[in-house]
Formats: sequence, C-alpha cells, structure tokens
Amino acid sequence: MEFQGVKGTRDFYPDDMRVLNWIVEAWRRVSLRNGFEEYDSPIFEYLDLFTAKSGQEIAGQLFNFVDRGGRQLALRPEITPSLARMVNAKISSLPRPIKWFSVPRLCRAENPQKGRLREFFQWNVDVIGADGVLADAECIYVAVDLLRELGLSPDDVRVRIGSRPLTVAVLRGAGVAPQFTEAALAVLDKRPKLSQEDFAKLAREAGLSDVQIEAVGRFQQAAGVDELREHFRGLDEVRGHLDDLAELFASLGALGAGDYCTLDLRVVRGLAYYTGVVYEVFDRSQSLRAVAGGGRYDNLIEVLGGPKVGATGFGMGDVVLGILLAEKGKLPALGQQVEYFVIEADESSRPAVLEAVGALRRAGLSADFNYRPRSLGKQLKAANRRGASRAVIVRADGVTVKDLASGLQRDTTLGELLKAPAGTKHMP
Amino acid sequence: MEFQGVKGTRDFYPDDMRVLNWIVEAWRRVSLRNGFEEYDSPIFEYLDLFTAKSGQEIAGQLFNFVDRGGRQLALRPEITPSLARMVNAKISSLPRPIKWFSVPRLCRAENPQKGRLREFFQWNVDVIGADGVLADAECIYVAVDLLRELGLSPDDVRVRIGSRPLTVAVLRGAGVAPQFTEAALAVLDKRPKLSQEDFAKLAREAGLSDVQIEAVGRFQQAAGVDELREHFRGLDEVRGHLDDLAELFASLGALGAGDYCTLDLRVVRGLAYYTGVVYEVFDRSQSLRAVAGGGRYDNLIEVLGGPKVGATGFGMGDVVLGILLAEKGKLPALGQQVEYFVIEADESSRPAVLEAVGALRRAGLSADFNYRPRSLGKQLKAANRRGASRAVIVRADGVTVKDLASGLQRDTTLGELLKAPAGTKHMP
Repeated sequence: MEFQGVKGTRDFYPDDMRVLNWIVEAWRRVSLRNGFEEYDSPIFEYLDLFTAKSGQEIAGQLFNFVDRGGRQLALRPEITPSLARMVNAKISSLPRPIKWFSVPRLCRAENPQKGRLREFFQWNVDVIGADGVLADAECIYVAVDLLRELGLSPDDVRVRIGSRPLTVAVLRGAGVAPQFTEAALAVLDKRPKLSQEDFAKLAREAGLSDVQIEAVGRFQQAAGVDELREHFRGLDEVRGHLDDLAELFASLGALGAGDYCTLDLRVVRGLAYYTGVVYEVFDRSQSLRAVAGGGRYDNLIEVLGGPKVGATGFGMGDVVLGILLAEKGKLPALGQQVEYFVIEADESSRPAVLEAVGALRRAGLSADFNYRPRSLGKQLKAANRRGASRAVIVRADGVTVKDLASGLQRDTTLGELLKAPAGTKHMP
Repeated sequence: MEFQGVKGTRDFYPDDMRVLNWIVEAWRRVSLRNGFEEYDSPIFEYLDLFTAKSGQEIAGQLFNFVDRGGRQLALRPEITPSLARMVNAKISSLPRPIKWFSVPRLCRAENPQKGRLREFFQWNVDVIGADGVLADAECIYVAVDLLRELGLSPDDVRVRIGSRPLTVAVLRGAGVAPQFTEAALAVLDKRPKLSQEDFAKLAREAGLSDVQIEAVGRFQQAAGVDELREHFRGLDEVRGHLDDLAELFASLGALGAGDYCTLDLRVVRGLAYYTGVVYEVFDRSQSLRAVAGGGRYDNLIEVLGGPKVGATGFGMGDVVLGILLAEKGKLPALGQQVEYFVIEADESSRPAVLEAVGALRRAGLSADFNYRPRSLGKQLKAANRRGASRAVIVRADGVTVKDLASGLQRDTTLGELLKAPAGTKHMP
C-alpha cells in the first residue's frame, strides 16, 4: 500500500519545520514585544459560529462534519469568530483594550493554487475594546514590525491602506443609492484584478452610471489625504473619515512605520463585515497574493452575541509570506545543531559514553551519539551530519573535547565539561 | 445568539495559553537537547491511512468527513501513521537513525472524561531505523529528561516497563496456543483495572486454563530480571528477551534515568502493533490515566508501504500531564510581562510617546502604552496590570525611567534607553 498526503496540505520534514518555526517564532516575538497576549481556540467549532459571521456562502469553504451526537461541526477557516466567542464569554471580566494574538492552523476547502492551500497557519493580531484609529495604527505597526524583523524593507513590501466608510461616503456623494452600496464595494474590491473595460462593465451591472464610475475612479487614484480634502471640500460626510485617515498616518509616522504605508483607496476588502480602516500588505510588484489583510470590524462582537464594542486587527498567512521571503532571499539556512557529539574511543567506553550523554543533557546542553560502535572517523562524520559544534571523545581515563570548526582539541574531564553554563559556545 | 465551544475542546485564554506554551516549550527544548529534530504532518489525512494502521475499530474514534471531490478524509487521532507515511516517502534519502519529534494537535471522537478530551496536544518522540534496545532506552531517557525538567521526581512519577515478546514467550511456554495469544494479551492489558475475579473470568473466556492464569500471574509479579532468569531457566525462547531487558535497564542506569524506571510486566499496551519493549508513565499513586506510553513497533513502517525497519517511540499528552503538574504544585505562576510601559506626562507628549514605543519595540524591547490620555496614576496602574518592569514617563524635555518593583527612578533620554541590549533587565 502506498499512502500520500491530501492535496493542498503540507508535510513538514525537519528542514521545512525549521523554516515554519522560524516564522512562527518571529510572529510570537513581535506580538509579545508589542504588548499582545497569545490565545488559541479549538480547531473545530459548531458550524453555526462560522455561518453566523460570514453567511451561508462561507459554508462552501468549510470542511464540515457531523459528530456521533449528530452535531454539525466545522474546521475553523479563520479564527476571528472563535475570538469573538471567547471574548463574549468573558466580556465583563476582561480589562480593555484586549490586545490578543494567535497563530492558528486553519483549514479551507479550496482548490489549491500558488499561495493558497487547504491547510495553513495564520498570524492573527487583534485589539478589542478600542474605538480610535490609534488601535488601527498599532495593528499596522505590528505588521510592519514583523516585516522589518524578517528583513523585508519598504522596497520589498507595502501596507496599502483604504477606508470603507470613506469609500461609502464618496459613493453616496456621487449619488449611488444605499441599496447599491454593497454591490458597488464588491466590484471595487475586484477592480485591481480587472481590465478597465471589465471593471466598467461590472460596475454598470452593479448599478453605477458612467459618471459615477468616473468619479469613484478619480477618488480611488488619490495619492494623499490633502488631495482628498481639496477634492471633497463640499462633502461634510467625508470630513470625519478624512480626519481619521490623517490621524492614522500621523500615528504610523510617529510610531516609525510610515515608510511602509501608502494610501490606496482601491483597497476595500471583500468581506462585508469591515466598518473602518482596511488594509492589505503586498509585495511591491504585486505579483503575489496579499501577504496580510485586515481592518476595523466594529459590529462582529455584537453579531456574535456580545455588546457593541470596537474591534480591529489583521491576519497574515504563512504561505505567501514564505514565498515572498524565498523570492527575496530572506530565508535563513537552518540545519540541525547540537552542542556535543559524544564518541567512544573503543567499545569498553560505551557505559561512559552513555553517562556523558545523559549528564550533558541534564545540564541543559544538547548532546547526541551513535547507537552502534563505529570507527572514530565514522563517528566524527556522524557528528558533522548532526550539526555538532564539538566532539567529546570518551576514553577510559578522561575525555578529549574537539572543536569541529577549528579542529582545536584539549583533554579534560566530564566534570569540567558540565561546569559550562547551558548554551555557552565555549572554545575547547 | 449565544455561541459555545464544543464539549471536550478547550479555549486557551492568555493565562491558559501561557501554561500550554510552557509545557510545549519544555517538550521542544528537551527533544532538541536529546538530538531529535521536529516535524509535523497535516491535521487531516485520507481515512485509509488511519484504518490501515489500526483497523476499522479506530474509525469509531475518528472525526471523518468527505471533501467536495468525494474523498474520505479524517482528522488525525495520532501522528504515528503520518510519521510512517512521511518516512516511507523519503526512506532512501533519510540518514538513519531517524530521530524525530512532533507536538501535534490531535482529535478523537471520544466521550470527554477527566484526562481525556476530544482535542489535545501530544508530544511524540520516535527513533526509526535502529533495532537495538539502546534506541528504546534513549526514548525512555527523553521522557524522563522531560519529567525531571518539569520538576517531577521519582517520588511523583514512574516509567513502568514491560516486554511484549517476553510476555508472548511466557504465554507460549505456559502452553497457551498461538491462536489465543492476542486475546490473552488483551486481557492482560486490562488486568490492572480488574478485580482478581473479573480478571480470572475474562482470562478463562480468552482460552487460558487456571494453571496458565496462575503461571502468567506469577510472571507478571516479577520484580526484576534476575528473578525472571531464575524462574525461566529452562525456557530458551525467553533468554534473548531477558537479555534485552537487562541491557535496557543497564543503559537507562548509565544514562541516568534508572531511578525513574521500574520493571512492570503487567504493562503490555493494548495496541496489537507493539513488537518489543513497551512502557507507560504513571503518577506514583496511579490515580490518573497514563501520562505517556510507548514502545517498539517494528512492523508499522512495512505495513504502511515501506521496508522492514525498526521503530520505537512514545506519546505524551498535555491533558494528564497538566493535571499531574497542577496536583503536584509544579505549574509556575505565569502572567503577562513587558519590559516598558510608556506614559505621557501630558497630552502634548503623545507623539513623543508613540516615538518611544516604536523605537523600543524596534530595538527588540517589549513596550506597551495607553491608547487614551489618562492621569499619571491610571497609567501607572495600567503598567502594573500589563506586568511592566519599568515605566517610561515621557516629558517635553526627556524621559524618566521608574523601576516599578523598587520605585527607584532616574532621568535619561530615549537614546540612552535604546542602548540597552534587547532583553536586559537593567536597573534604572
């Protein structure tokens, strides 16, 4: 019998796992230094939780199943509904703002494509219980802090920032009737992937006139908030949203993330649940899918049974990020590493080898050895294969420590070796 | 709408997550220092992979589902079948012995009970491609290294070690016919949970005579290998297995794990796929389920489509381990911790606060702050709630750093603060 993994899933062999761990550790390190706390939710929930947030259309993206009690369950395709459920269950005892992050494994019943798999990891960073754009700015800062941490510069990636309520206000100002707003936003969301003609065709189908298409198009080209202020001077409804955007960019500048951030009103995010600032992180050439996406979603907590409370955050998947890092040559070479490889000078020293191995490990030092007696040369080769820094050659009357990079060696005792503090890369 | 998590799953709020991470980090640290490399597999696989290993009876413990292509999939209830699949796919290029570990999230369609949930994490440590008992000894040593690392002593926990082939040889020596061996092993596995009468009844049903029950009972009471040697002097079939057990205990002693290990021939492990040494880790009073269990399984790689190659390893779940650590008072108190909480002396210093926060974080230091202007007292209170070590009070003309434990403070500049190496707990 030959078995294979399911298409769209990944096997993480040690070399792949070291890369994944390197990314996940950076996600965690950056989250913690930005004052966020980690949480996690179950990998399956009641199906209702996911459809309540995103409607029945999400059901097609879900792996769902029935347990022996007949309950409808589903693998989580995103963690935000679970986050909202968890927050709601303790809403009265959690001090606000709630600054939480997670690194969930997510599953979606999609057709696998480049950058899109059926199982992946997604870093989620959210602030709940803060209404001002400073919370949005902090989330964007966290995303930028991570990009910088992994060696990606503003030449490599950009955070493209739009505003749902501003776009809605401009649509209304251009005379788009409220019942057409959602459809118009959906078309605008697709615009970057469409030709000018296809976009115009879909926009007309969504109920926009040619004049409105022209007006919205001009608005989406705006390069900065000042230009918009000039353009929409007469439109009172717009002013508050422009003030918010201006404050957002000022805060991003003060925090030190301004050079990664660009106003891009073409970003509207497809999901209906966003209510404020929205953003997507793209590679500069925009040849890949979005590396991350997020925004403000002030209604979700309430929709999922809680009070009306502001919420904002983003998700960043490991798949596109990994492709981008590889393309930019930013993935480090990571091999197995152990501090000591313990070698027997002859078969009689086998018990002493085991004693040395056990003692080194208990002292917090990493140590490996061969199960079978081998020649000294073969044991040294095994030491190199395991990425050992030093070989410890155990003789009847003591040990020799050999630095495998320099070849330097000295005679010592096991007791002396163990005195080295854990993790110290001391020379022999 | 009110949403709840599914029974038998857990929500990890930050306090719970810190405990889980503390356990998982220990699993990883101990694995790495013992020379094992991490891998992971998809959380769902083709259903066939799991039933091929453990037979159709496992299907009742599986969460299985059908994808849109009509494929039968299942959430992994254990990772060993995936490990075997992955090893088989690269068997010719992987240097042996393969020493791998993983920390998979597993899902089982069980009725939740104390120590048994429908979703949990399980540390898996395996050696593939090594036939001798030294590989078994090393796996047991790794388990012991972890127990010791978490503060559990031989007074708290014991590794109880048995031998499947020895037990089989003794059954045969007592005249149990080969066709009754599996049934007899299944009854022996249940013995510790049965009264003497119930055990005798089941054993008779499995085809054992009263004399055979008596003989096997005496064998299972044996306290050491020497006693067994004396007892089974005439039985050639037994000698090799006794030599293996003796070598195992000698290796465990040399490695420094002997004080945690006990011969206990009542341990036979239920699963039919074990072929050699088997063991279970229990709390001393045996009031909880097994903390860990494992053994040698030399046929599995071949059953799952690979060559005949020796394999041995164990699994340790987070649930029983967590209960035991809590009972023994070994769980540390873990709260949120940040190095700096940045405070504004007055509203005009808000941009300077953001600059300080951003700069500290970029320098690798953890820093938090309030989104809204508050009184100095309220900001200091927030600093304490976030577990800050120091407050940084930003004024128009510089900053004051206050150590929150000692109350000591000094005036400085942001530039001076940033010169501190990441993570250094320097006094103000």
